[in-house]
Amino acid sequence: MYVTDLDTPTPVIDLDLVDKNIHRAQAYADTHGLALRPHIKTHKLPELAHLQLRAGAQGVTCQKIGEAEVMADAGVTDILISFNIVGRTKLERLRSLARRADCQVVADSEAVLLGLSETFANEARRLPVMIECDTGGQRCGVATPQAAAELAVLTTKLPGLVFRGLMTYPPKHRVKEVGDWLEAARAACRDAGVEVEVISSGGTPDFFQAHAQRLVTEYRPGTYIYSDRAQVASGHGTLEDCALRIVATVVSRPAEDRCILDAGSKTLSSDTLGLTGFGHILEYPDIGIVALSEEHGHCHIPPGTKGPVVGERVTIVPNHACAVTNLFDRIPAMRGGRLEAMLTIAARGKVQ
Amino acid sequence: MYVTDLDTPTPVIDLDLVDKNIHRAQAYADTHGLALRPHIKTHKLPELAHLQLRAGAQGVTCQKIGEAEVMADAGVTDILISFNIVGRTKLERLRSLARRADCQVVADSEAVLLGLSETFANEARRLPVMIECDTGGQRCGVATPQAAAELAVLTTKLPGLVFRGLMTYPPKHRVKEVGDWLEAARAACRDAGVEVEVISSGGTPDFFQAHAQRLVTEYRPGTYIYSDRAQVASGHGTLEDCALRIVATVVSRPAEDRCILDAGSKTLSSDTLGLTGFGHILEYPDIGIVALSEEHGHCHIPPGTKGPVVGERVTIVPNHACAVTNLFDRIPAMRGGRLEAMLTIAARGKVQ
Repeated sequence: MYVTDLDTPTPVIDLDLVDKNIHRAQAYADTHGLALRPHIKTHKLPELAHLQLRAGAQGVTCQKIGEAEVMADAGVTDILISFNIVGRTKLERLRSLARRADCQVVADSEAVLLGLSETFANEARRLPVMIECDTGGQRCGVATPQAAAELAVLTTKLPGLVFRGLMTYPPKHRVKEVGDWLEAARAACRDAGVEVEVISSGGTPDFFQAHAQRLVTEYRPGTYIYSDRAQVASGHGTLEDCALRIVATVVSRPAEDRCILDAGSKTLSSDTLGLTGFGHILEYPDIGIVALSEEHGHCHIPPGTKGPVVGERVTIVPNHACAVTNLFDRIPAMRGGRLEAMLTIAARGKVQ
Repeated sequence: MYVTDLDTPTPVIDLDLVDKNIHRAQAYADTHGLALRPHIKTHKLPELAHLQLRAGAQGVTCQKIGEAEVMADAGVTDILISFNIVGRTKLERLRSLARRADCQVVADSEAVLLGLSETFANEARRLPVMIECDTGGQRCGVATPQAAAELAVLTTKLPGLVFRGLMTYPPKHRVKEVGDWLEAARAACRDAGVEVEVISSGGTPDFFQAHAQRLVTEYRPGTYIYSDRAQVASGHGTLEDCALRIVATVVSRPAEDRCILDAGSKTLSSDTLGLTGFGHILEYPDIGIVALSEEHGHCHIPPGTKGPVVGERVTIVPNHACAVTNLFDRIPAMRGGRLEAMLTIAARGKVQ
């Protein structure tokens, strides 16, 4: 079965490129002595998590317990959940999960730590916790190195918990500032009597500069496995490295300067990630996907460009691979141009 | 079971509000002699399609064959697919579907009509086809009233097809221009010897002005059943009418002016529809959801506002209801504040 046999719109992954992306990242991590802990949010596929682990990854990263449960169900045993776990239902799920897989979590407040401690106080095995640090990304994380040290100390004192280290999701392209922050946090921890052994960073854009991020011992890239238009724009590889593509059909050619695809926001996602347009059409690089309805991709054909005809298929590199894989229940995986598997995206939609 | 028993993030629908929205729309359509053909893209639920039909809707509208198949499987028998059906696989699925449900489709080019005709030439029942008209929305549709008449004539001549009328997805708030366009198209069809009996328009924003849209005999609103922040901004009802909401939990309060929700783009969608921010927090109307990661909602707390604490729950009216329901497999439906059903969003992700 070939790509041309698949109905559209459909995402397609190229396993040859996936392998290449996995091995290039692992080789880099090995060269620099970094532990690799890929974020499964990009593919959401146990099969690809196992490819990453077999290549040498130490474990995986998940954002939500539901994702971690899917991975544990598929035999993945070393899981960092890089998200504050809050509320009784989730804490109880985490406790169950931690009995059958090696789980670690993060925390950025006393409130989160107290919930974790209360839940794990009577467990046979203490829960490893990393303190999440806001090194400039302005998402979660403690605001200062001193606050990181205070929570590290608290972690060492609370029943049921063990301090694992510091974790950050750093701002893009600010390697030096992030390093300064983490160095100050490590020093503050040491001053408070806590040694920091693991420092975990993430983000595909700066992954290949991870060796320049002083102190980082572990890295959690996600998108590198597929890459996408936003990663290429960030300087990570080229369009040829992008292993996830969308195949779409032209369903209307209503004007000289306009064609409409059967792929809209329910296929490409509305994510722009700061880019202009909603994807890159490989066969027609000059034609922009300028707007999306849910089921329509609105394309602008510049003057002088002979656009596609109704029924013609095009191949799109999406802006954001992770958002695309959250829209589909299954994804065809090709190798050498032929269908190798129709994979179920088992962790799709696991937002709880 | 109450909303407080549901884990977060989760969408929730209020069936009391759904009923109210359905009946208000049906009463308006009845008063003005309009056939109502709700678009199921908003809810994607056979259960709610049947509520709409029982209230008096003539049939439903779907955008893709996969959605229509789900509706037919659930006993819906009158279905307009308002999308050009292109390619052998989909044409064959349409032929199968049309043997078990009354299907109609649209076309905006000779290429689409020829594909339909070839597929239905030997069928016992001819396929009703509407000509899609671009009355200013610049999506699909023929560009001129004359072109509409030409395709109408072609439809009457092609084997297997029957001309049903004209269809448009009009631009918002341009009722007069749309009416002029359709009047010219009807006249052009008449001049060419084809009477237009059905003229179908759509879009919730102008639904309650449909009586002012001269000639329109059928209307295909979708979002009216739930409404959302974008509809309210367009002048359709109020936030209190919005039957779909998101319940989320505050997982981090990293700074005085910032809190982070467990609902990101995988819950709220990245759709802005021209609005600022990614949803309206009912309990904290001054706090803006200013950015989304996949699993994080980044909120700005203005000076002087006492923001929520970690663990607190908030209720969000999303920007775009249709995009939200495409992200979840199941949706809790409440009535009188209690859970009445956990509905499977059966037509979710049916983009083919």
